[in-house]
Amino acid sequence: MTIQMYDLCGAEPDRRFSPFCWRVKFALAHKGLDFEALPWKFTEKDRIAQHGAKTVPVIVDGETEISDSWAIAEYLEETYGDRPALFPHGKGEVRFIKSWTESVVHMGLGPMMMYDIYRHVAPEDEAYFRESREARVGMKLEELHEGRDGRLKGFRVSLNPLRLTLDAQPWISGDAPAHADHIVMSAFMWARGVSDYRLLEEGDPIIDWRNRMLDLYDGLGRNAPGYD
Amino acid sequence: MTIQMYDLCGAEPDRRFSPFCWRVKFALAHKGLDFEALPWKFTEKDRIAQHGAKTVPVIVDGETEISDSWAIAEYLEETYGDRPALFPHGKGEVRFIKSWTESVVHMGLGPMMMYDIYRHVAPEDEAYFRESREARVGMKLEELHEGRDGRLKGFRVSLNPLRLTLDAQPWISGDAPAHADHIVMSAFMWARGVSDYRLLEEGDPIIDWRNRMLDLYDGLGRNAPGYD
Repeated sequence: MTIQMYDLCGAEPDRRFSPFCWRVKFALAHKGLDFEALPWKFTEKDRIAQHGAKTVPVIVDGETEISDSWAIAEYLEETYGDRPALFPHGKGEVRFIKSWTESVVHMGLGPMMMYDIYRHVAPEDEAYFRESREARVGMKLEELHEGRDGRLKGFRVSLNPLRLTLDAQPWISGDAPAHADHIVMSAFMWARGVSDYRLLEEGDPIIDWRNRMLDLYDGLGRNAPGYD
Repeated sequence: MTIQMYDLCGAEPDRRFSPFCWRVKFALAHKGLDFEALPWKFTEKDRIAQHGAKTVPVIVDGETEISDSWAIAEYLEETYGDRPALFPHGKGEVRFIKSWTESVVHMGLGPMMMYDIYRHVAPEDEAYFRESREARVGMKLEELHEGRDGRLKGFRVSLNPLRLTLDAQPWISGDAPAHADHIVMSAFMWARGVSDYRLLEEGDPIIDWRNRMLDLYDGLGRNAPGYD
């Protein structure tokens, strides 16, 4: 049975950029499960409220409705334990990598990508997106955008833990990719979906890993509309 | 048979502050192995050169001489596989946590602690320490020290991945402490050994974890000379 998933989209239904939704798509593909990623807009709260959710990602797997990307990964791991593991080494240390991704990578990317996201959301989502994000950052999206170049160097430095890890081993999870890789890559998918801004310097070892991640699962990432 | 370990000390032989040496002491204690941590000063290169090493930690386990804290942990895990695991969930994601600790926590703590370390090294190590560290940071230790308060806020923010992890689970490794916990805690042992500077704000959830880490292994950390 095909799992249905609500997946944030932009003005174009095929433009999917939510990092939390990407985690779930990578997880479903890793497990080799059939899924349909339904386009969903910020203002379509009713469509997910029927499944008891306030935010995406949401999956509907038969009778099961579940939201929150971490809870979904746990559910998939438990329910489909006979398929490739998302947490082949347990969840403990992956939780740290999730925490790092959200407090460092997302916090670094967010201000640099916010205006580009705004330019890609559906017309009916524009007002909601601008108001909620400007309230969060305390300035106009255009002002935030102007400061982008000044943030880039610090962002690149903040990726040192990732860089050092990939100097020592091919994947964040070790010898083979798993959910820790999905979580970090999903942040790069967020940026890729909306922006051609060059986040990584030429020669950065993260680029090679990012390319390998784009190619995984028959090019799930590579084939998604975005900027390369 | 008792494992011998060369462990950096200060002017007082019992003052041990090297974060890399702490990782090994925690690892040995976690495995329940008998060990003797021999005091060693920066200028005693000959004493470790006889074991083929240029830096501490070095362990001597019967015929085996081995240096580098990560290599030592791998050796202990392989050799004493029947004892509690340092990497119960594999090494992949722990490598990321090591990379984060070195590129974020050590890089943040180093400048704030450098002058305090200087004040604690043995008299014969002072010139070496000052010259090598001032060359590295490009300024006098005293100047570096004066800028300390200005670095504290950024350092605290940089610990967010740790804080978020400990909001969700009791140990970095998950339900029980393991080498990922040792690696991060050893950075705090570095600071504790030389400085009474208050790194963490009251109420920070990291404090509770730090206290539990100090109490592990019959208070290995707690009983070491340092500032609480």
